[in-house]
Amino acid sequence: MKGHYPSRAMLAGIDLGGTQVRVALARSDGHLVASIKTKTAMLATPQAMVDWAAGEIDRHRGREKVRSITIAAPGPIDIKRGVLVNPPNLPWQNVPLVAMMGRATGAKVQLANDADMAGLGEFHHGAGRGSRNMVYITWSTGVGGGLIIDGKLHRGAHGTAGEIGHMIIDPNGPLDNCGQRGCLEAFISGTALARETGHTAAELFAAAAAGDRQARSVVERAARYMGIALISLTNALDPEIFVMGGGVSRSWALVYPTMIETLRSSPFIKPARRPRLRRARLGDRAGQVGAVEWARINQ
Amino acid sequence: MKGHYPSRAMLAGIDLGGTQVRVALARSDGHLVASIKTKTAMLATPQAMVDWAAGEIDRHRGREKVRSITIAAPGPIDIKRGVLVNPPNLPWQNVPLVAMMGRATGAKVQLANDADMAGLGEFHHGAGRGSRNMVYITWSTGVGGGLIIDGKLHRGAHGTAGEIGHMIIDPNGPLDNCGQRGCLEAFISGTALARETGHTAAELFAAAAAGDRQARSVVERAARYMGIALISLTNALDPEIFVMGGGVSRSWALVYPTMIETLRSSPFIKPARRPRLRRARLGDRAGQVGAVEWARINQ
Repeated sequence: MKGHYPSRAMLAGIDLGGTQVRVALARSDGHLVASIKTKTAMLATPQAMVDWAAGEIDRHRGREKVRSITIAAPGPIDIKRGVLVNPPNLPWQNVPLVAMMGRATGAKVQLANDADMAGLGEFHHGAGRGSRNMVYITWSTGVGGGLIIDGKLHRGAHGTAGEIGHMIIDPNGPLDNCGQRGCLEAFISGTALARETGHTAAELFAAAAAGDRQARSVVERAARYMGIALISLTNALDPEIFVMGGGVSRSWALVYPTMIETLRSSPFIKPARRPRLRRARLGDRAGQVGAVEWARINQ
Repeated sequence: MKGHYPSRAMLAGIDLGGTQVRVALARSDGHLVASIKTKTAMLATPQAMVDWAAGEIDRHRGREKVRSITIAAPGPIDIKRGVLVNPPNLPWQNVPLVAMMGRATGAKVQLANDADMAGLGEFHHGAGRGSRNMVYITWSTGVGGGLIIDGKLHRGAHGTAGEIGHMIIDPNGPLDNCGQRGCLEAFISGTALARETGHTAAELFAAAAAGDRQARSVVERAARYMGIALISLTNALDPEIFVMGGGVSRSWALVYPTMIETLRSSPFIKPARRPRLRRARLGDRAGQVGAVEWARINQ
């Protein structure tokens, strides 16, 4: 409308997952006003995804302008060029998402790593609230993470900080899909556990919950490996808190006791500096919440 | 002198090592004007050390006041209370160094971890200049480090970030002095190498330099373990550069090729995001230079 100036601009966060795409709309102060999702499989092409998200944003923005949008996407992504490279869970390659979404909305658009955004969401609005130094870990099909250092997301020199699943836990361990030997992921990712047991990770955790001894033993060993990674991360980074999300965190009672026991077993990490270990609170919404926060920070 | 106001205040950095104590005096902009050292063994008590350092500072400050002093000391230290707890290389326990030095000089005094200060020195004035994200590693009797994140020293939530020697490299490895099993230190610290070979680390590296095959093989294995730690740190932190100091870095030609080859062997760490690996430049002066810098930042 000519001559009309919006009272304030809005923000949007888009979480592009292998199963679902989620869009959140927020006021300029970060307060959410709408949250919409659809199945990724319904959006046949990147352009269809962009059109759907832009349409939802347009439908919910009212008379406000949307100033800043962050798209959280699975790596590898090229943050500088705004390109989705070749995500393992999506059949899309070298998609210039930032340019496409910018054309569709007129907003400033940024691409960000989905685990970073989930960590940022948990830090500002979930289990990490009130801390200054937090390590977010997502444990599901893969193992990823995001680092909050002194109150700010640390993306690293090339945007790839927080690749916790690719820390080497045992140099004589199995070969991971990434090509490294003995990565944390090679031992404990959902994919690795499924390969090892011949069951899906969901079946394995269900069996462990039902008391199956062999399933329990596999889950406990995985939790012990994660605990070892927590020790290394504590010694390297000295965080106040670990926040853990992802599918495995739904089976918290199965993994938490062994993880915290392993962390406590280190005599070098005295109780006074031992980080807390908490389950994520925002569930599947963490990515979109963090993406809105990132859009706010970088608007 | 009554009625005299100094034109500008000065800074001092003190590096309290097991072998030498070093004092550096600088103008308020960080420019060094004096550097003095003595043997730690000459200073029988903490008070003697404080008196010597305060005397040297007083002797070199001219008509200027010294506003801010940082003491770099080996851990464990209590940064908040300003207390040296029980350093492994000094026969001193629970020494309230900050209070003592404050009384002796009238300056604002801070205590800091020596590896953090060496890292800060290398970042501002040594091999890390021009970077924003740097991991400093000191490899000698023990293995320690300091993290520079986005241009700032990251000390962590409890001042213990950068304990790189206590990252777990192999959970089935040997028991370290710290009580953890399979720490990097348990494999490659000077102490561990001496215990394993029955020679001092200096003898081992001299033999390797002279071409002794067995010594070379031990040194190469140690460098490979360090390379594995570099892979884990790269995936966790995504730094631009590793800077390595400490006694072992003097044998750079013996350890660098294996370390960089190991880092390059990771297919997950693509060349575009592979950090550089550089030898430290400031030698034994890194700690005092970093301490002056920290005194400047916190004046």
